[in-house]
Amino acid sequence: MTDTRLDVLCIGNAIVDVIAATDDSFLAAEGLDKGAMRLIDAAEATRLYGKMGPGREISGGSAGNTAAGVAMLGGRAGFVGQVADDQLGEVYRHDITSLGIEFTTPSQQADVPTARSLVLVTPDAQRTMNTFLGAAQNLTVEALDEEQVRQSAILYLEGYLWDPERPRAAMERAIDVARAAGRKVAFTLSDSFCVDRHRDGFNALIDSGRLDILFANEAEIVSLTGESDFDRAVAAASARVPLLVVTRGERGAVAVEGEARVEVPAEPVAAIVDTTGAGDLFAAGFLTGHAQGRSNDVALRMGAIAAAEVISHYGARPEADLKALVAERLG
Amino acid sequence: MTDTRLDVLCIGNAIVDVIAATDDSFLAAEGLDKGAMRLIDAAEATRLYGKMGPGREISGGSAGNTAAGVAMLGGRAGFVGQVADDQLGEVYRHDITSLGIEFTTPSQQADVPTARSLVLVTPDAQRTMNTFLGAAQNLTVEALDEEQVRQSAILYLEGYLWDPERPRAAMERAIDVARAAGRKVAFTLSDSFCVDRHRDGFNALIDSGRLDILFANEAEIVSLTGESDFDRAVAAASARVPLLVVTRGERGAVAVEGEARVEVPAEPVAAIVDTTGAGDLFAAGFLTGHAQGRSNDVALRMGAIAAAEVISHYGARPEADLKALVAERLG
Repeated sequence: MTDTRLDVLCIGNAIVDVIAATDDSFLAAEGLDKGAMRLIDAAEATRLYGKMGPGREISGGSAGNTAAGVAMLGGRAGFVGQVADDQLGEVYRHDITSLGIEFTTPSQQADVPTARSLVLVTPDAQRTMNTFLGAAQNLTVEALDEEQVRQSAILYLEGYLWDPERPRAAMERAIDVARAAGRKVAFTLSDSFCVDRHRDGFNALIDSGRLDILFANEAEIVSLTGESDFDRAVAAASARVPLLVVTRGERGAVAVEGEARVEVPAEPVAAIVDTTGAGDLFAAGFLTGHAQGRSNDVALRMGAIAAAEVISHYGARPEADLKALVAERLG
Repeated sequence: MTDTRLDVLCIGNAIVDVIAATDDSFLAAEGLDKGAMRLIDAAEATRLYGKMGPGREISGGSAGNTAAGVAMLGGRAGFVGQVADDQLGEVYRHDITSLGIEFTTPSQQADVPTARSLVLVTPDAQRTMNTFLGAAQNLTVEALDEEQVRQSAILYLEGYLWDPERPRAAMERAIDVARAAGRKVAFTLSDSFCVDRHRDGFNALIDSGRLDILFANEAEIVSLTGESDFDRAVAAASARVPLLVVTRGERGAVAVEGEARVEVPAEPVAAIVDTTGAGDLFAAGFLTGHAQGRSNDVALRMGAIAAAEVISHYGARPEADLKALVAERLG
């Protein structure tokens, strides 16, 4: 195994979040499942946007958020994702590269615009996402830089990539390239509704033995395994993957590696404003710790610290100095 | 005088803010005057953006922020400004109209993109703005809806409009139309560097007797009058305009109408995050109170409450329910 150039290479949908405050009655009137991500087409994006209040545009996308977290924690991060050659694409590229993240996927000169997610945040800080995938769904196998994959210690993929067909093929190829180079592959289930859509595919991927680390939250792991409660779901899933990391919101997080199970509590937060990106930043903290050779309990705490920061403000990218925050809290 | 359709019609540069945290050393390295607004061209916008950290895109523009504040306080607001037919222009239009603000200026199908301001926020919450005017400078006299001006109780204009030639002409025309219809005209000096650029023009406008209300902050009123201290500057300026409103940051604000001078303290703020929009929202509160027939001291307090809200978070548009906030604090 040769030296690595990157600690974590993240592949995901390149999405600009359009974040607006709303209330429960708006979600009810629109028939939206609170806390879920749904895919919408261009017409629905235009219609819903027209009904939403004023927005803040902040770069997002699950794996992109994780790459931002890794970079802000001092890790060497890369990102692969498809944007269009438009203003939102420029914003996305700027925000990723200004953090020192390697992002070399060329923009597409297409009629299909850069992806955006209409993120509706209720007063309880829950986010309900309505994603128009746009150019993101046009990420192809050809856009992969296989040498970059080979030179990355960990390849990290979002479950959302399973939705659009072309990125799914790119993801499958990236996994094969990473494994052939002796690298680790990490995967997140992303969203329980996404698990509902792709349960068979996700289970087949896990049982193919090609994943080293699986990230999930409580709802996702229960949905994936079909078990009746959390402990049974963790037991069932952890038997099928070398390292399982499950987040539990205010109840903290659990990592299971073989027979070894460790847990950490959630980090304190003064006020939870917007939970968008909590799981993404948890993964960033854990993966950075893991890449640094830290133990699972320290890596979990790094995840919890990063997640606590991102839920304290609007937007799914950290605003505080994450590296300093982790140094201070880990002591 | 016929009935009005709008309480306040705001004309200004239609600008999307790109807000990034920075530090004093970055401002020093770039040779930027902290707290000021400078105009930049497309090449400089690209260069500086490439050096900035990740941004949040939030609709801004001084008079646009004021229109947002008026609408959120329950006033009937209108906005006139030029955007291009591009993604940032769509964002701008959405954010204005979703607040119920009348905004009928057609987008321009031009090669010149929608304006953006690169807003650098230092840890002391000061904002340093680098504005690429883009399409905003192409607002023409022809884009004015003169009937809309005649049906608005107050016409409100930003001093920044004096910088680009075409909008300046549109502003002059709007003032004439408003006065001929018996409406009030309000004007803000915007920025002390803007006063430096246009002192003669601003003084001539004030002394033409066409302004009813003049807004300024301490630095602007001192710069305009050339007086050596604040009290002398207020005395000199208030003799030249029916109603003068001057904001003093943490020292509150003053209104002088003829012989009557009233003052209010600043409203308490838990933590000041980003002072962008403080003056704009102060004007929104004052103008809404004025349009409602409130006394100058109540209108000043409404301004102080709205300003306190907007400096407590990133972005120059209110996030809280301003109307409820004012009702609660005024008692």
